[in-house]
Amino acid sequence: MSLEKWPKIDVKADRSYPVFLGVSLEELGEFLHLQFEDVEHILIISHQVVADVYLDRLQKGLLDYRVNQIIVPAGEQEKSLERISQLTRAALECETDRKTLVIALGGGVIGDLAGFFASVFMRGIRLIQVPTTLLAQVDSSVGGKVAVNHPLGKNIIGAFYPPLAVWTDFSTLDSLPWEEVENGLAESIKHALIADRSLFEFFENEEERIKEREKSIWSEMVVRSSAVKVNIVSQDEREQGVRALLNLGHSFGHALETEMNYRGVTHGQGVSIGIAAASHLANAKGLMTIAEVDRIKQLLNRFGLPIMIPGQDPRALLERMQADKKNQGGRKILILPKGIGQAVVSRECTDQEILAAWKQVIS
Amino acid sequence: MSLEKWPKIDVKADRSYPVFLGVSLEELGEFLHLQFEDVEHILIISHQVVADVYLDRLQKGLLDYRVNQIIVPAGEQEKSLERISQLTRAALECETDRKTLVIALGGGVIGDLAGFFASVFMRGIRLIQVPTTLLAQVDSSVGGKVAVNHPLGKNIIGAFYPPLAVWTDFSTLDSLPWEEVENGLAESIKHALIADRSLFEFFENEEERIKEREKSIWSEMVVRSSAVKVNIVSQDEREQGVRALLNLGHSFGHALETEMNYRGVTHGQGVSIGIAAASHLANAKGLMTIAEVDRIKQLLNRFGLPIMIPGQDPRALLERMQADKKNQGGRKILILPKGIGQAVVSRECTDQEILAAWKQVIS
Repeated sequence: MSLEKWPKIDVKADRSYPVFLGVSLEELGEFLHLQFEDVEHILIISHQVVADVYLDRLQKGLLDYRVNQIIVPAGEQEKSLERISQLTRAALECETDRKTLVIALGGGVIGDLAGFFASVFMRGIRLIQVPTTLLAQVDSSVGGKVAVNHPLGKNIIGAFYPPLAVWTDFSTLDSLPWEEVENGLAESIKHALIADRSLFEFFENEEERIKEREKSIWSEMVVRSSAVKVNIVSQDEREQGVRALLNLGHSFGHALETEMNYRGVTHGQGVSIGIAAASHLANAKGLMTIAEVDRIKQLLNRFGLPIMIPGQDPRALLERMQADKKNQGGRKILILPKGIGQAVVSRECTDQEILAAWKQVIS
Repeated sequence: MSLEKWPKIDVKADRSYPVFLGVSLEELGEFLHLQFEDVEHILIISHQVVADVYLDRLQKGLLDYRVNQIIVPAGEQEKSLERISQLTRAALECETDRKTLVIALGGGVIGDLAGFFASVFMRGIRLIQVPTTLLAQVDSSVGGKVAVNHPLGKNIIGAFYPPLAVWTDFSTLDSLPWEEVENGLAESIKHALIADRSLFEFFENEEERIKEREKSIWSEMVVRSSAVKVNIVSQDEREQGVRALLNLGHSFGHALETEMNYRGVTHGQGVSIGIAAASHLANAKGLMTIAEVDRIKQLLNRFGLPIMIPGQDPRALLERMQADKKNQGGRKILILPKGIGQAVVSRECTDQEILAAWKQVIS
């Protein structure tokens, strides 16, 4: 037996790790046996809906280990320090120790929450990300960013904590609700927009086959989109430079999510509206034509992603951007698309210009 | 100007950093100017008693920066996730961002709390440790361990987060209450016991001059004791091996502190009683003579450190050791002294033997 049988891309960072793409949940145990001889105890953190469907399949490969599960409620609001405290209690009660390996089985919320838990429990224990949503597979499971939220801002408390591996089984996407698909598409389109023009065109050309969930096209979408993320993270794991580009749409999106208290807007919807706002701002700054703005908004729209939000106060949203992690010395720093397939970091957007961009996406 | 003017020892780890020993609070600003050109904002985290005495001196060197202070209440019980949440709020309110540098000004609690805060705020911002107690100077400020407590165990939630530098001004020890001195002596004697027999003899020979706080002898004590810690951490930053030895007395001590809810026993007292218990256990395992046990207990006693605790239930204390971070697969792992000047990791202590050791220190 060897590791060669599983297709992967490596993240080349301080500590490199493999992102396995198109493997099966049942085989994770085999990988663990090959790679980590001293694991005895495994702690799976998941939420109910995911656990109901995938826990059995995952556990089939884990019969040689002492395995415990902790099931947490679903939803972005679960990413809290209170939940970290509860996870700690539950983990201690099942004798989790420094040799335990944590498996984060689920989407972006579980990856962030279980990942941050693993990063701080007893000052850090081993972590494998097993992403089961499109968003987690193309984006959040790769790169080691983990976090919980604070009432004043999203993902304010967290760590850079790369997993030992990412284990991606495409079959978990088969039954994904369309709302969850949208979340992933928003990030995937964002990847295309900042770094891969041909991936953007792929989305424009393959709309139908993507909507029909054709397996081969979905595999291609996940692989190409993950590759953008892996490539960027490999250049800049700690977000000192190019990695910041991955935040396109997120300064706007996070402000919206926080302002709406994570209700009535999904992360993908927030990012989509954020991309629309950032595109308008880019146009105002001379970085793209209005035709390009429209082309971007049209693509988002074709996949059911919103480009407008009703009834929000632009000033309140501007205020929410105050807690953005990219800000420096009180200055707002934004990622703006530069045409299609590139992006830039802008330090020169005034509050006035940002307000104008918000107004373009508020109906 | 150059860095050469300040005496230091370097911790040689993943990322090396200097431990400055015998410098002045007023000069920290000069060091920052020399070393970190892009710092604009400094956030000092301290507690009231320390701030009252030292904040002015520290700030004298920081006139070129935007400086904010957050003052937290004193005490081990402040090391909590709730306090991390409050610090986050206060930090955001004074526009703390990813470029901010945190100064932890205080003893072990402040170092742990402010250090953990810096490690997770926006996934990690820069940190300088400015230890003002003997315990922090000889032990906790060096090595990058930061943490908060959980109701089920001390320092259960934390990180390895090395500071950019440790800035140690011996003059802060002049007015230290004797109870605080004891805390440091317990750790310092622990360092001697596990790795430096001649430092142990230094304590035996210099009792009077130490008690009289003679400056030259205190400098020697801090420098020699820090050197033990720096040396061990440089060999094993992430506690995969030799660093575990620094936990001598702490499995017992933490259990006692947790059981007593951090009231009626200081950390140093807990460690001292823990060292006594571990010594008895070492004797039972044939690692030291009873004469050596007595010699250790006598030294602790001569510095006012307790070697007995009244009215505790040994079984309850044993139970508290369940959450110890060194445990593996439910087995308790203990550090035991081997004669004077060495220590070993023991995986073979039964609950029976541990109970017997507890009984030796409960009056």
